[in-house]
Amino acid sequence: MNSKELASAYKHELLERVVPFWLEKSQDPKYGGYFTCLNREGEVFDTDKFIWLQTRQVWLFSMLYNRVEKRPEWLDCALQGGEFLKKYGHDGSLNWYFSLNREGQPLIQPYNIFSYTFAAMAFAQLGLATGNQEYSEIALKTFDIILKKQDNPKGQYNKAYPGTRNLKNFALPMILCNLSLEMEHILGATEVEKTAKEVIHQVMEVFYRPEHGLIVENVNADGSFSDTFDGRLLNPGHAIEAMWFIMDLGVRFNQPETVSKALKIALQTLDYGWDKKYGGIFYFMDLKGHPTQQLEWDQKLWWVHIETLITMIKGYQLTGSQEALRAFEKVHDYTWKHFRDDQYHEWFGYLNRRGEVSFNLKGGKWKGCFHVPRGLYQVWQTLEKLG
Amino acid sequence: MNSKELASAYKHELLERVVPFWLEKSQDPKYGGYFTCLNREGEVFDTDKFIWLQTRQVWLFSMLYNRVEKRPEWLDCALQGGEFLKKYGHDGSLNWYFSLNREGQPLIQPYNIFSYTFAAMAFAQLGLATGNQEYSEIALKTFDIILKKQDNPKGQYNKAYPGTRNLKNFALPMILCNLSLEMEHILGATEVEKTAKEVIHQVMEVFYRPEHGLIVENVNADGSFSDTFDGRLLNPGHAIEAMWFIMDLGVRFNQPETVSKALKIALQTLDYGWDKKYGGIFYFMDLKGHPTQQLEWDQKLWWVHIETLITMIKGYQLTGSQEALRAFEKVHDYTWKHFRDDQYHEWFGYLNRRGEVSFNLKGGKWKGCFHVPRGLYQVWQTLEKLG
Repeated sequence: MNSKELASAYKHELLERVVPFWLEKSQDPKYGGYFTCLNREGEVFDTDKFIWLQTRQVWLFSMLYNRVEKRPEWLDCALQGGEFLKKYGHDGSLNWYFSLNREGQPLIQPYNIFSYTFAAMAFAQLGLATGNQEYSEIALKTFDIILKKQDNPKGQYNKAYPGTRNLKNFALPMILCNLSLEMEHILGATEVEKTAKEVIHQVMEVFYRPEHGLIVENVNADGSFSDTFDGRLLNPGHAIEAMWFIMDLGVRFNQPETVSKALKIALQTLDYGWDKKYGGIFYFMDLKGHPTQQLEWDQKLWWVHIETLITMIKGYQLTGSQEALRAFEKVHDYTWKHFRDDQYHEWFGYLNRRGEVSFNLKGGKWKGCFHVPRGLYQVWQTLEKLG
Repeated sequence: MNSKELASAYKHELLERVVPFWLEKSQDPKYGGYFTCLNREGEVFDTDKFIWLQTRQVWLFSMLYNRVEKRPEWLDCALQGGEFLKKYGHDGSLNWYFSLNREGQPLIQPYNIFSYTFAAMAFAQLGLATGNQEYSEIALKTFDIILKKQDNPKGQYNKAYPGTRNLKNFALPMILCNLSLEMEHILGATEVEKTAKEVIHQVMEVFYRPEHGLIVENVNADGSFSDTFDGRLLNPGHAIEAMWFIMDLGVRFNQPETVSKALKIALQTLDYGWDKKYGGIFYFMDLKGHPTQQLEWDQKLWWVHIETLITMIKGYQLTGSQEALRAFEKVHDYTWKHFRDDQYHEWFGYLNRRGEVSFNLKGGKWKGCFHVPRGLYQVWQTLEKLG
């Protein structure tokens, strides 16, 4: 691997092909915020505004401004989205809706905790970019609400009957790994250390099942394995993504053994989740090999592959593992071949098992300005560290 | 088409291969009710009990007992499921849960109106089979609750923010077409006539969009088209299934023009929904050809094809339409070739776009003892009428 050449390929893809796509195609000049339902060429096919994607785009452009270059058009893009969200994204008490219509009127109630986590992440980064204390306060208050809602994130919208089968879910501790570091400038080192200790424990000792070498998406409240659809569920991309969040925490708190363990789990998960017939990483699997409830289990999704690239290159950079390097190269080849669009900017999101494009959209309800540019940025930066 | 030979093939498949599968493999001898998560050979891979499928199996075995033959093992099978549901299926006030664990403890709250509709259908048919008034009363009271819940079926679990975009959904009026006829012996002719008039209007004049010749899944509260993900959504199998419910109402109320219109809509939908490249009917489509939110849009599902067989053969039998006959033959060939399992009983449920088996289960969270046997029964009976 020529890491210099590759770093410049990732940088070029980010700055010349992906960031311009979102900057030019997604901003709503009339009402503010961003269109994310964009077809292959970048034309808007639906105008609904999903809070996950609105907040993540604010984060992404703020992050580029903070870490790459002080380009005013990047800050403007983040700012107009931030103002739209400040005004329309929540109910007045920082309960973040799931979606809005184009004008900003709420469509779906604040049932989804990740609307909150991505809002906190966005406003923390926007606060840093602007120095505007109001944004940092939105981030901090939202973070507090997240911690309060931890035990029943869905609130009244939780359809689980209390007491019969109390499961806890991997996603929130996993996101908190990343969010706590993202917010360290607001939360302070002590708070981050406290949160990090707990989430590392949850991810690496509760959701990770050493008898299988894999992370499950749900466990019983007491931490034991649940032999049910939810308890057997694996989401390889999710687990592998979490491992680079854990590596970042390992670096921050100077725990090389945490980094090594995270890389080991990621490699095991990639091996288990790799489609030996057609290549690519499966979306969902069952720990016992039973059918999943998710009909889309065998599809190949952009974010799964991009997050895996980040984890593997970080693992290589931090440990020198040749296995991590080979894994990076394998997933790099698959990802650039199948997800990148030669003809138009931004990448495809959804492939069928064989790697054929299933939807030729560049953005939709779940795919926005986030995993592709964040992944390109992270891999570029990590490759540069390799020199 | 040799209708006699074909009738006997459908009858044989029903009585020798499908009904025995469920009778032998699915009953839970310890706690009552049915296992529906069954692998290819019929072995249980998960023990959760989903009310849609529990109730539908009670209905199916009661229906066979009422209409095909008074086999005591069929009645026993229906009865034990009915007793399990009477005791565990609801909250004591006939609010029907969505799912239970094996022992009958509630897992998912009563948020889903179709748990209620299939419970009403089940207990109406079981009341008929047994003459037990208690069952008929459960059906009648549940029917009343459904009508009361019509305007906000999800109640507190409804995540739509009130007022921004009030949509109404096709599924409930569509199911009421069938349920009202199913319950005529309990509801009485006047009530059925009243319900039927309203639901025929909703299905054929509100959800059917003559400018496209297709039925949409959701419209605005005022009946207008909504140019949104939900408003553009097509589910061809759903629309075609509704058309045989409408034909049954057309026959019942002696409206041949309703029968002809239903057949016309079904043929248009089949033509639109047919995969010209690989054959089979798509699961979801967008009226404007945009990507759907449903990642599984291009899969081929058992129930879609089986319901289409019923609609086409009824259409042919009632109108003599050669187009309906050709459509029946085309879908028959695809369905028997791809969904039927030569080696083991019951049929596959989920194929990918190319018609390859995606999950080799015979039952799961959504596939139980319902569409395959009901479809085989309906087609067999209709073919017999052709003589």
